[in-house]
Parts: sequence; C-alpha cells; structure tokens
Amino acid sequence: MKEEKPRRPLYYADYIQLDRLLGSQQLQSAIHRRPAHDEMLFIIVHQAYELWFKQILWELDAVLATFRSSPVPEEELGQAVLRLGRIAEIQRVLIQQVDVLETMTPLDFLDFRDDLIPASGLQSAQFRLIENKLGMRRQDRLQLHAAPYTSRLSEEDAARVEAAEKDPSLFDLIESWLERTPFLNFGEFDFWREYRRAVDTMLAADRTSIRSNPTLTEDEKATQLAGVEATARRFADVFEQGSSEPMDAPGRHFSRRALQAALLINLYRDEPILHLPFRLLALLMDIEENFTTWRQRHAQMAMRMIGTRIGTGGTSGHEYLDRAAERHKIFADLSALSSFFIPRSALPRLPSEVRSRMGFKFNSPR
Amino acid sequence: MKEEKPRRPLYYADYIQLDRLLGSQQLQSAIHRRPAHDEMLFIIVHQAYELWFKQILWELDAVLATFRSSPVPEEELGQAVLRLGRIAEIQRVLIQQVDVLETMTPLDFLDFRDDLIPASGLQSAQFRLIENKLGMRRQDRLQLHAAPYTSRLSEEDAARVEAAEKDPSLFDLIESWLERTPFLNFGEFDFWREYRRAVDTMLAADRTSIRSNPTLTEDEKATQLAGVEATARRFADVFEQGSSEPMDAPGRHFSRRALQAALLINLYRDEPILHLPFRLLALLMDIEENFTTWRQRHAQMAMRMIGTRIGTGGTSGHEYLDRAAERHKIFADLSALSSFFIPRSALPRLPSEVRSRMGFKFNSPR
Amino acid sequence: MKEEKPRRPLYYADYIQLDRLLGSQQLQSAIHRRPAHDEMLFIIVHQAYELWFKQILWELDAVLATFRSSPVPEEELGQAVLRLGRIAEIQRVLIQQVDVLETMTPLDFLDFRDDLIPASGLQSAQFRLIENKLGMRRQDRLQLHAAPYTSRLSEEDAARVEAAEKDPSLFDLIESWLERTPFLNFGEFDFWREYRRAVDTMLAADRTSIRSNPTLTEDEKATQLAGVEATARRFADVFEQGSSEPMDAPGRHFSRRALQAALLINLYRDEPILHLPFRLLALLMDIEENFTTWRQRHAQMAMRMIGTRIGTGGTSGHEYLDRAAERHKIFADLSALSSFFIPRSALPRLPSEVRSRMGFKFNSPR
Amino acid sequence: MKEEKPRRPLYYADYIQLDRLLGSQQLQSAIHRRPAHDEMLFIIVHQAYELWFKQILWELDAVLATFRSSPVPEEELGQAVLRLGRIAEIQRVLIQQVDVLETMTPLDFLDFRDDLIPASGLQSAQFRLIENKLGMRRQDRLQLHAAPYTSRLSEEDAARVEAAEKDPSLFDLIESWLERTPFLNFGEFDFWREYRRAVDTMLAADRTSIRSNPTLTEDEKATQLAGVEATARRFADVFEQGSSEPMDAPGRHFSRRALQAALLINLYRDEPILHLPFRLLALLMDIEENFTTWRQRHAQMAMRMIGTRIGTGGTSGHEYLDRAAERHKIFADLSALSSFFIPRSALPRLPSEVRSRMGFKFNSPR
Repeated sequence: MKEEKPRRPLYYADYIQLDRLLGSQQLQSAIHRRPAHDEMLFIIVHQAYELWFKQILWELDAVLATFRSSPVPEEELGQAVLRLGRIAEIQRVLIQQVDVLETMTPLDFLDFRDDLIPASGLQSAQFRLIENKLGMRRQDRLQLHAAPYTSRLSEEDAARVEAAEKDPSLFDLIESWLERTPFLNFGEFDFWREYRRAVDTMLAADRTSIRSNPTLTEDEKATQLAGVEATARRFADVFEQGSSEPMDAPGRHFSRRALQAALLINLYRDEPILHLPFRLLALLMDIEENFTTWRQRHAQMAMRMIGTRIGTGGTSGHEYLDRAAERHKIFADLSALSSFFIPRSALPRLPSEVRSRMGFKFNSPR
Repeated sequence: MKEEKPRRPLYYADYIQLDRLLGSQQLQSAIHRRPAHDEMLFIIVHQAYELWFKQILWELDAVLATFRSSPVPEEELGQAVLRLGRIAEIQRVLIQQVDVLETMTPLDFLDFRDDLIPASGLQSAQFRLIENKLGMRRQDRLQLHAAPYTSRLSEEDAARVEAAEKDPSLFDLIESWLERTPFLNFGEFDFWREYRRAVDTMLAADRTSIRSNPTLTEDEKATQLAGVEATARRFADVFEQGSSEPMDAPGRHFSRRALQAALLINLYRDEPILHLPFRLLALLMDIEENFTTWRQRHAQMAMRMIGTRIGTGGTSGHEYLDRAAERHKIFADLSALSSFFIPRSALPRLPSEVRSRMGFKFNSPR
Repeated sequence: MKEEKPRRPLYYADYIQLDRLLGSQQLQSAIHRRPAHDEMLFIIVHQAYELWFKQILWELDAVLATFRSSPVPEEELGQAVLRLGRIAEIQRVLIQQVDVLETMTPLDFLDFRDDLIPASGLQSAQFRLIENKLGMRRQDRLQLHAAPYTSRLSEEDAARVEAAEKDPSLFDLIESWLERTPFLNFGEFDFWREYRRAVDTMLAADRTSIRSNPTLTEDEKATQLAGVEATARRFADVFEQGSSEPMDAPGRHFSRRALQAALLINLYRDEPILHLPFRLLALLMDIEENFTTWRQRHAQMAMRMIGTRIGTGGTSGHEYLDRAAERHKIFADLSALSSFFIPRSALPRLPSEVRSRMGFKFNSPR
Repeated sequence: MKEEKPRRPLYYADYIQLDRLLGSQQLQSAIHRRPAHDEMLFIIVHQAYELWFKQILWELDAVLATFRSSPVPEEELGQAVLRLGRIAEIQRVLIQQVDVLETMTPLDFLDFRDDLIPASGLQSAQFRLIENKLGMRRQDRLQLHAAPYTSRLSEEDAARVEAAEKDPSLFDLIESWLERTPFLNFGEFDFWREYRRAVDTMLAADRTSIRSNPTLTEDEKATQLAGVEATARRFADVFEQGSSEPMDAPGRHFSRRALQAALLINLYRDEPILHLPFRLLALLMDIEENFTTWRQRHAQMAMRMIGTRIGTGGTSGHEYLDRAAERHKIFADLSALSSFFIPRSALPRLPSEVRSRMGFKFNSPR
C-alpha cells in the first residue's frame, strides 16, 4: 500500500474526466456539409458500446488470470462467477442499446452516412479482443474479404488483437480446468464406465417398452425403435475414443475428457463442490447466447437501416452479422451437451465415499 | 346500450375467473410417476404465452376491421396505431418470458419431458392464427413433415386456422391501402417520375465525383464506379415494370405501387397527413422484428434444453425455430425498402399545392 | 452546403475518438493504494450515464427549438415526437444500467469508496441541465445543504445550469403551446362550457341511479352520494377560475387554460389534428415516469451499497434519491389530469364544423 | 414410481387446458352495455399476473420446505438458490407487464371502469399469500380501512391467507438458519469480538488521520471527527446487546445473532462454504427490490390511469401502492447491513483452522 497523503478534494467532473469524454463527439457531417442531427446519436451509441467493451475486457482479464493458475484457487472461483455474471448483465445493456439506435430512421442515417465511409463498427479492436480472449480462432472467423480481419486496425491494435489469438483463451483454460476435474476417476469409481452402463440400461428399457406396447402398430414400433438406435449411436460416439466427432454444433470443440467433466458437473450439480462449476458453465452459455442475440438484433437493425445495400465498411452489415451470429460461437459444445443428459432417475448413484469428498470439510460425513 | 340493472358487487376472483385459471395446471409427471417440480413452470409459461396470444389476436382483429374499410376512416388510424403499439409492447413480455423458461435446466426438463410426447408448443393454434392473419401463406411455411401444418390441431382449430388463410390478411389490406395513397399521382405531379429523375441526378453526381477525385487510382475509380452502376441497376428494377423482382428479401412481396407508396410515406413523413402512416409502417417492422427475436431466443433456449435431440413434438426445436425466424417473415419488404432511399438533400421537392393538401384543414395554406 | 473536397478515409477508431475515450479511466484507488477491481465499473457506468445525458440534452435542445416557434410549424411536430420517443428509449438503457451497477457489492465498493470523497453523481451538471430544461425551478428542488445546488459545480458549469433556469423550459413552452390550442373556443363552440354541461349531466345521472337502486340500504346510498358530491366539488375546482388549486399533485402546475387544452387533446385524440399532440403529451408523461423509476432504482441501489451511511457526496444517497423521485416532478399535472376525464359515452359531441376543421385538407368534409 | 401404462398421445391444447384458459375472459362491459375493447387487456394482464403468482408460490413453497429442515441439507442449498433466482426472473416479467398495461389510456379505461366496482387487484389472495410466506405480519401492513385486509376474500382464501400468517415464514426460517451459522464462534475464535476490535482499530486510525491532516482547518477537523463518533455510536449499537435497535430501516428486524451471521457471510463470501449463503442473501434482496419496483411502477400507472380518484376497490390505488412500496418490506435489514461493513483491508483475518474448515473436504488443507 502506498503511503497516504492528504490530498485536495476530488470532484465528480474531474474524476470521470468529463471534459475529455464530452468533448469527443465530432460530427463528420458538420465538417463536410452541415450538422446532421442524428449523427450525434450514432457517435454516442458507439462510444457507449466501446466503454462497455472496455469493462467486459477488464472482467475477462481478471477471470483469465484466475484460470491461468493450476489448480484454480478455490477462493477465487466465486469471484470469477460474479465477474462473468457482470459481463452477462452488461450484455443486457448492449442489447437494449440496439433499441435506441433503431430510433434513428434510414432517412436520418442518409443525412450523414456517406461522410463516414469507410468507418464501420466492424473495425472495433476491442470487440475483436473480446472474441479472441473468449477463444475465437482465425480459421473460425467469417472471411469478409481477401484481407485479414485486422487489416483496418491501427498497427498497435492489430498487434494486440493478434497477440490475444496466441495467448491461452478462456476456452483453452476452461478446457484444461475441466480436464483436471478429479471426480471422473476417483479410486475404484470410473464415472464414464458407470454412465455408459446407465445409458445402456435406459436404452434397453426403452426398447422393451416399445416392443411390449400393445397400442402401437408394427410400423410405429419400427419407427420408434429406429429412434432409439439413433440415440444409441450418438451416445456411442461420445463414449468411444476414435469414433467420429460427437458434437456437431458449430464452433470449437472441447476434448472428450473436458466434455465428460462438463457432463458430470451438470448432472451432479447439487453436490456442494460442483455448484459453482455448474454456475460457471451456465454463465458461459449465457454470455454466448447474449452475444448471439446482440448480433442478431444488430443484423435486423442493419437491414432496416440500409436495406440490402453495402454498409459503410464495405460489406452488407445485415448478412455479416446474421452469419456471424450463427458462426462466431465458442462454447456451443456446452449448450449441445444436453443431448447427452439422461434423466435423474436413471443416473448412476455416486458412491458415498465420492459424495462425501464433494462436501464441505466442516460437515460430518454423509 | 343495454338497460342497466342494479347488480351484485363484483369481486376480483370472480371477475377474472381465478378458480378456473388456477385450476388448469395438471402435471403429467404427477399422473405417470411423481410430480416433477419444474413441470409447473413449463405449463405456466405456455399458458402465459397463450393468454398473450389471445390478446394479440384481439388487437389484430380490431386493426383488420379498420383496414377492411375503404377508405380507412381517418379517425380510426390513430387507434390502429395504438393497437399495433400494444402488440409490440406485449411482444417485449413474450421475449422476457424466454429468460424465465431458461431458468429450467435440461436436467430438470428430463424429469418430465417424456411424459409430454408428442405435445409441443408448435401445436399452438393461436400462434398459427396470428401468423395467418398477419399474412403468412401456406406455401411460405417451413414444411416440417409430409403432414400439413394443421395436422395436430383439433378439427375446430384447424378450421379456424385454415379460414384465416383465406381471409384478407393484414398484409393484403395494408397493400391495398398503400396502393390507394392519393399522392403518388396528384394532378400534374407524378411522384415516381420525379423520384426517378432525382435518383438519376444523384447517380450522375456520384460518377462525376469519383472520376474527378485526384486521390483515387484508376483501379479504385473503376471499383467505385462499378458500385454506382450496381446501384443504378437495382433502382432500375424498382422503376421498371416487368423487370426482375426488386426485393430479394425473403417472405412476401408488395406490389410495385404499394412499395412506391411506402417509399413516399417514409421519405415525406414530416407532412402531417403522412405521419401516422409512417408510424404504422414502422410498427409493422417492429412487430416483425420482435417475432423474429422471439423465435431466435426460443431457438437458443431449445438448443440449450434438449441439444440436438428431437423435441417432444417430433422435430428438432432449435433448427425449426431458427429457420422459421429467418423465413416466416411477412413485412420484410418494408425493412428492405431503405435500400431505395436517397438523401433528403437529393429528394424531389413536393409542389406547394401537394404539400398544402397534406396539411390540416384548420391551418392556413403553406 | 460546404464544398465537398476529396478527403482521406475515415476509420472507426478515429471517428469516435477511441484513444481519448478509452484513456479517460483513471482509478483513484491505483493512485492512493492499489487498484480496486470494481472501481473501473464505477467509472465506466458513470461515463456511460454522462454520454447518454449528452444525447438527451441534444434531443431536448432540438425539441425546445421547435416549441420556441409560434406557431409551432406543423411539419416539425412529428420530428419532435420522434425525439421525445428517443429520450424515453434512452431512459430504458439508463434504468438497465442500474442492474449492472448492482453487480458491485458493498464490500467491493468499500475497496475504493474513501478515495472518491467528496465526488458524487449528484454533482452531474448535465443532469441538472436536463432537469432545468424540462422545467425544474430552484424552489422546487430538494435542498440538500445550506449551499445552493450548484455549489460543487465548476464556475462554467454553474453558469450554464443557472442560465438554463432562466430560459423558457419545455414546461413553459408546452404550456404556451397548449394555451394557443384553437379548438377551445371555435366560433360558437365553447369547449369548456360544453364539457361542464356534460359533467353536470353525468353527475345528475349518477345521483338518480344511486337513489333509485333498490338493492342499496339508505346508509349505502348516503355513502355513494357523498362520493358523487366529492367528485362534483373537484370538477368545480377545475371549472371555476379563482377557486382553489385543482391539481394537488406535487410539482409545477399548468395554467387552467393549458389544462383544458390537455383535456381536449386527450379526450378527442382520434381527431387527426390531435393525434400527434396526444402522443406528445403521452411521451412527456413517459419521460417523467422513467426518470422517477430511474431515481427510485438508484435509491434502492444506494441503500444496498452503503446502507444508511452518508454517501461520498456528504448526503444519504438513498434518502435524497427517494425523496427526489417523489418531488422532482414537472409534468405531474398531466398524469393527474385523468381525474377529470369522463367516459366517451358522456363526452360532448364536437360540432361537425369543428370536426371537419380537425381533419386533413385533402379529405372531403365529414 | 407408479407403474407406467401405455397411454394415448397428449396434445398441446389438452395438456395446458387451453379451452378453459381461453374461455375465462368474460367482459363485464359486454354484459352491462357493450364490449369495451380494452377490457380484454385488463382481464388478460391480471390473469397473467395470477399465473405468475401461482408459480412464485410454487417456488416459495419448495424453498420453505428446504429451510424447514434443520440443518438445511447442504445438497438442497443450490436448488433453493436456483428457485429464488427463478422468482427474481419472473418478477422481471411482472414489471415488464406494467408497460403493457400502460398502453391502455385513461379514456379507454373509463369505457368499462364502472362495470368493475368494487373488484380490485388489491383483492388478490395469492399476492397476500406471497407476502405472508415471505414474512409480512399483520401489524406491518398498511391499514386501508377499518376492515381487515382479508375482508374481501372468499372464506376459503381468507383461511389460507391467515394460515400463512401463522406458519413459519421465509423470514423466520432464514433468521433461524443464520443464527445456526457455526463460524460465529468456532473453538477459540469469536468472530464478533474480532470484528469489534477491527472496527475500533479502523476508527482510531480515522481519528488520527483527521487530527494530523495539515490541510484541514480546526472547524473541518471537528466536523469530520463528529462524523467518526456518529459512526462509532452506530457500531456500538450493533455490538452491544440491550442497546437501542441498530437497524432503523422500515420492516421486520433480524435478531442480532442473525445479523452477525449475515455480516460474516457477506464479508467472507469467498470462502467456499459461504458462497451459496452469500448468493442466497443477495437474492432475497433482489426479490425485495423487485417487488418494490413493481409496486412503484404500479403506483405510477395508477396515477396516470385514474389520477387522484378513488380506485375501483375503494382506495386511491396510487397512494396505497406508493406507500406499500416503502412499507411492505421484509428483508430491509439485509440491505441496510452494508452500513456496518468495513473495508477488506481492515477485516480480521480468519484463523487458518477456521478457513480450512470452510473449504471442501476434497482439497488439501490451506
């Protein structure tokens, strides 16, 4: 701690540097023709986005720091969850801001649109940083032109964005953390073997129930049995190393071991030691969903604002945003994982030794 | 007005029929196995959706009634706008309700999911009615199976839904109303001819400005000129009857005359007589956007809830909803119309006689 | 229009001055001790507020300019309504931002709270400007200390804020505009006399209906008749100049003539010429409601963050905000006006000459 | 588990009992005069509220069941937190619904308002149940009339509501659960004694720092020192049994021991065993805040809808709701508790034995 010195009083306007902040709106229309009323909104809404992107990066960096430790300190997990929760809350504001931008009509946009060329929100270095720190890889990106996605960034920004591609991303760190989950193999207990057995039992019961159902015709039985076999094959893909890729969702894919851990965490979330991990995975899905919604809302707004024309940045904003919403996903495996859940009643029961180790030290054994 | 009789006091619980309302939640899980806690949420959220659908239909029917008159009584237009505004506000609630449904985890859903087969929210007759009354045609629908989309409705519901296919929809009535806009041809004034002239002037100025720009290389000039020509061709498509379809957005398409009227309304919205029509068109776009967002949020939720499995209704909910969000659009022409806007500074000035007729009778001539 | 010169390409980061914007977050905790993680959020959320305040002022100034003209140009009214609608939409973002700030826990706030003394959001000059431009008067303000409310502003800010007290506010301009409504007295037609007659008729019918109701006891009749008389007295207060003040809501009060005009606009809103004025009045109420909600949410947040302690600005934030939410109202008369509405069925019918003048010149007489 | 029998297919409309649900809207205006368009909205919005109240009660009952166990099973705590989180999410919908109701104008309400007398939303038995189950006591309620608050409920409803007054409420159960927190006294460790010491040290440092600050005048020093003494007295009130009540917020008050536990949980939330309790307390505050916001929004809406008139239920809706928003608080102590937080840097460090017991059994000692 630095030595505290008596200091002069701090006032609000100086503290948040209002002079700079409120002096940073220069209408291009005012330079080139005459001020277009709605250009102020256009600037302010983008500035508000960038302020919030800075805050998201601030939280993301703190979460990354926590997960770079191995093991992750258990007293930092709660903090990480709070920070991810804050990101999700900020995203609600980002989405709400689209409604504000939509109060600008296309006609009003045309009053200054040509003055902006080729500036475009797609040139936001901070948003690229967020994507990269979450785990986006260059090859997963939509390719807009022949030029690399960093081509219109300043040299310094491009360097930061590219460095973030190389550093371990949240995806990488979460994958490693999942892979280290101790309870997948615990003494005699092999979660995956038990789970496989439970799935087999469940599927066998399904087959019997269909075959012995007197209200079904033979055709209906055949159809339903075919459905069970399809399910069986999909489970086999998760269980067997070397079989084809189990997750057919777009985006990056976790290792099988990481997926198994994510499954364990979701299915046994009521065990105290798994509750925060469960919430963490849920927040990763929330954050991904929110960015998808934000891109989709932007795509709608872009269509309404400029139709099927090419945007100021040289691309059809609508199409880019709409396809990015579908493709720029990182944690899609977590959402798709529910394909492999089985009902609580069919779940293997954890051995009491395992359950006891999942509880708090304070409490007596269960 | 009926004769008023003295009557006994009305109490809240009787007024809104609480006994029936709160006695309509029968957990299937409780019948077949044991109550699954989250099934109550599943029922309630769908019931809340249906209540709001009823309200949306109530408003929609009133708006349809207004637009079935020709001419539309000018003192009903404000009311119609208020009612469409209410629909948009209800949709915000529908979207918010997705967040509530997402508090149900996939594991909790599995506790009762199999008890529901083959019930599915896709069987909502009211939602089909809304789609049809807005203007969805059978051929524009995503085909789920060989069976028609009404196959799982009761006979009575199927009949209502099919009748709504045949009645003039909001799309049809708005198209006719647009086509009747008097100001497209008004005495000597031919809006479309003037607009075409203005577009030509603007494009000519663009070409000159590119050719005479000393900072551009010849290659850059060629590229930019090609862009101008592409724009010119697209405008030609709107101007020339018999040319190819100008609007390449998905969904239904307005007649050229209706599109021209919609353009006029958007471009000259500040004329008093056009302000309510402008707001009406904006609300139609809002309502379409909101249903798109609602479907997209549902698609995300379905993925998270059941992964890539087949939903209880026999389809992959995620995929159906995601594709319906893209395809089940009715007023997409209105959003895409901004492609054909030109800047205010290039707009043809309306003759003073026309402007004067667009004002209020009360005011002195402008 | 200025002569257009060829110019160098504009990039996003330069356009919205990202260097300045993102370089304006200086953690006080980092200067005095060590960086407190959550101070970044505290700065960013206040900066986002101030950006939006700037936008609100931008819209408000444009609306004030429109209403400073007399008569208000009829082709500017639609624009003014759109701008007020935008303010209301921005306020939804402001309210949503409170949820983000609430992700900061009191414990995290304590990590830097003392470094900020005496800076406080209550020192926002822009927010004072908004209040003053809407119509807040010095005497209506909550007095925090002996010192004037501008005491902690810079000299320049204090001067702007005080100048805004003297300029005609939106309240003043709307009041004048309402007073000029032509239809209050129109040829033979005296709206107020007719309305009074209608109210008297309605009250007489109410009395008769109560007296002749065989299901009521004498006591019940007496109670209900007393209610009618109370209503009669309250109407008398609006009708009679020189009687006591009719509006007992807090805040500023419109002149009787302005109130009468607002009543006319609300009751006959379906007449084309009154629809935009109706929407304008509705938006003034929306904007006031939204600021009230925003202050109330902030009051809750302040309680949770610092309890009943004194805030960094030297006051109990919770109490100030809660009382300001109740007291800093400007358009409360508009909300309270519904006290004096009578049912459509009892409304005086406008003479056809008046109705005709309320329509569009284009249309044939009604 | 009941034996599963083959059964006939379940369809959506039957499952959620659409016939009953959509057949429960009977316009009173249609009975007495002629249908008023907006009465449908009025009915539907109240029915939607009641559906959600049923869901809130469903979640609340499950949470109450968990906390009635002593000790609370550690594997149920996560579930309870999820359920409270769901209630908070439902409340967001309730608040959003006010925006829908506000699309009804006062004039439209007058078309059917008199037909409803004396029905009023204040007669909602379910809402009274929610209040009582949360912990509202009869004596804490706003008294509307001489009549008890259950006077207009059916006999059966009144009985349920009164029974809920007597059963242990969430407030009671949370208080007991807090009082049982083991870590307040743990072997040699007495949290409260340590905390008091830390507070004394902090206050002593504050006094020294003020006295030795060369930039302060004697007057300023005196003022600031008086502030420190006021703080000291307020802390003394919490520390000393038998001193005056420490929490001056409105509503119910927790026992000192429960407050101490809540303080411990908030200050040491990063210890794994305290994270879920921390989140639970945060959600109780969220839920209370949301009901406050909902009442405040309703109060605004009531003012706008009926002005200062008496509502259909015989009271001024605005005033009742506004005062209830302030007074009907149950967990205000939790929000006000932040008054007694001290900065992390001043917090007593937990002995390593205590910290170790707060961790998971699985992990090695810290």
